[in-house]
Amino acid sequence: MSVNEFELIARYFTGQQAEASGLVLGIGDDAAVLECPSDQQLVVTTDTLNAGIHFPKDTDAADIARKALSVNLSDIAAMGARPAFFTLSLCLPDADETWLQAFSRGLFEVATGSQVCLVGGDTTRGPLSVSITLFGYVSPGQAISRAHAQPGDCVYVSGTMGDAAIGLRIIGSDLTMEAEHRAYFIGRLNCPTPKTTLGQMLVGRASAMIDVSDGLLADIGKLIKSSHVGAAINVDQVPTSAYADSYFNQNTLLQLALTGGDDYELCFTIAPELEQDLLQQVGQLHIPVTKIGYITAGSDLSCKHADGQIYAAQGSGYDHFV
Amino acid sequence: MSVNEFELIARYFTGQQAEASGLVLGIGDDAAVLECPSDQQLVVTTDTLNAGIHFPKDTDAADIARKALSVNLSDIAAMGARPAFFTLSLCLPDADETWLQAFSRGLFEVATGSQVCLVGGDTTRGPLSVSITLFGYVSPGQAISRAHAQPGDCVYVSGTMGDAAIGLRIIGSDLTMEAEHRAYFIGRLNCPTPKTTLGQMLVGRASAMIDVSDGLLADIGKLIKSSHVGAAINVDQVPTSAYADSYFNQNTLLQLALTGGDDYELCFTIAPELEQDLLQQVGQLHIPVTKIGYITAGSDLSCKHADGQIYAAQGSGYDHFV
Repeated sequence: MSVNEFELIARYFTGQQAEASGLVLGIGDDAAVLECPSDQQLVVTTDTLNAGIHFPKDTDAADIARKALSVNLSDIAAMGARPAFFTLSLCLPDADETWLQAFSRGLFEVATGSQVCLVGGDTTRGPLSVSITLFGYVSPGQAISRAHAQPGDCVYVSGTMGDAAIGLRIIGSDLTMEAEHRAYFIGRLNCPTPKTTLGQMLVGRASAMIDVSDGLLADIGKLIKSSHVGAAINVDQVPTSAYADSYFNQNTLLQLALTGGDDYELCFTIAPELEQDLLQQVGQLHIPVTKIGYITAGSDLSCKHADGQIYAAQGSGYDHFV
Repeated sequence: MSVNEFELIARYFTGQQAEASGLVLGIGDDAAVLECPSDQQLVVTTDTLNAGIHFPKDTDAADIARKALSVNLSDIAAMGARPAFFTLSLCLPDADETWLQAFSRGLFEVATGSQVCLVGGDTTRGPLSVSITLFGYVSPGQAISRAHAQPGDCVYVSGTMGDAAIGLRIIGSDLTMEAEHRAYFIGRLNCPTPKTTLGQMLVGRASAMIDVSDGLLADIGKLIKSSHVGAAINVDQVPTSAYADSYFNQNTLLQLALTGGDDYELCFTIAPELEQDLLQQVGQLHIPVTKIGYITAGSDLSCKHADGQIYAAQGSGYDHFV
């Protein structure tokens, strides 16, 4: 039997999930139909990962799927929204069933974990590429944009910075590393964990938020540009993984933390008077967040060490075309 | 100045349209935020076009954009929905400004004409590929699926069949053709016109609908499979362009009309008692529709000539993986 496109889609991408609430018509028609909650606004994002650009060609198919969905979940988290459903456009060089099985497994593992439902898609032939459009909901006026940071607000990041960049360095290098550490860094690169709970917790608290995908300084740069403010960052406060200290000197590690891409943590700003309440909440849920600086008037991004010395940046992030 | 990704996006894809009603936050944040009409359901579709697969690599950038948006508009039309917003994922081998300018022009020409608004996107480096996710609105319970055709319903198609397949044959061939005819067929391939008005007019009238993208017989096959019915098609009733008669013999033309892809017309079924009212409405708006057969009990797709002779199909449509 020839494996045709329609059978492929049916076999690996339908019937894999419980039906989402609000889904009127799912995969298999010209379009999906959904009943949106009438008291919510719709939040939409799209992100594409291409083989050889965003992941090495031989990356495990399940990891490619996990990452493709996670980076979109990260964008929805960065708005303070609750993710709900997504469409998948999958471009494949051939219809390899083993690959599709692994991809489907990774995809639905993250989808189920995040309670998002695949509602439609398109499978085409071509160089390996995964494009996902993810939809979520947020209460009216509650979405956290990049544009409302205020001078005096504290700047926070979640998790640790630079781990994915370290993962990228490890792949194909001869750096000697303990297996557990190696798995950790490569896992951070291939399977980022979207900060969905933290994002929603920051609704009504954070004044501005962005997900850290292109490198911390580059992303803070975008946030302050949108907000028409500046920021003063204490680079020695930027959290890095304890593992990383053993393999890199402080300068290299700092550069990876400040300019390495693919962290998919959240960077947010919060008024000082709301800080204690937030720290109590995240503490109860064991969600790590770290204060790394302040929003300032003006438009400069100032990066200093704890002793006041200016940090000499050696790059400002990842740009697909530079 | 180095042209980086963010500037590219800003230059060609923002500020090109009047702000859409319902748009709370558009391009330039982690995600877009929209206020959906509370009395409508959301209809979502996604379609990707890859260079070398869905269009020749040297296709005019404006045409690529027009087609990418139009094929998605066609899916929304096939649900009887009103298109509203879309996201664009654009994968480019390089940041060619002339190309981007033409692409942007074609995209916003169709977007403005169809009153849809670009709300977000992602630009990545890689082999040329355009993925669009389009969403629209329909009154609750009014979306026209493929699944409710009833025995006795009439089967109709809009426009003419096979023109895009002829366009594909012409490109790179030595077929002698009048310039005007040549432009017509290539235009039908590169710039299909989504049948948005007809689609919405069929709400409350058509029992089932599908857009003709993979070839008429293949798409009727999907419709009857979803509806658990059969169909009897009179192949001599299938409308073809008057131009086409002068270049192809009847057999070839019929094969192109029945199995050629990329028509982006609508195929729908309608109860006989609703037929006259529909014909009056489409007549007033000069929208061409043609009855080509009937829905039958069972599950067979019967194709006969007007004299009762069975049509020997030489293919059942376009499949990306066969």
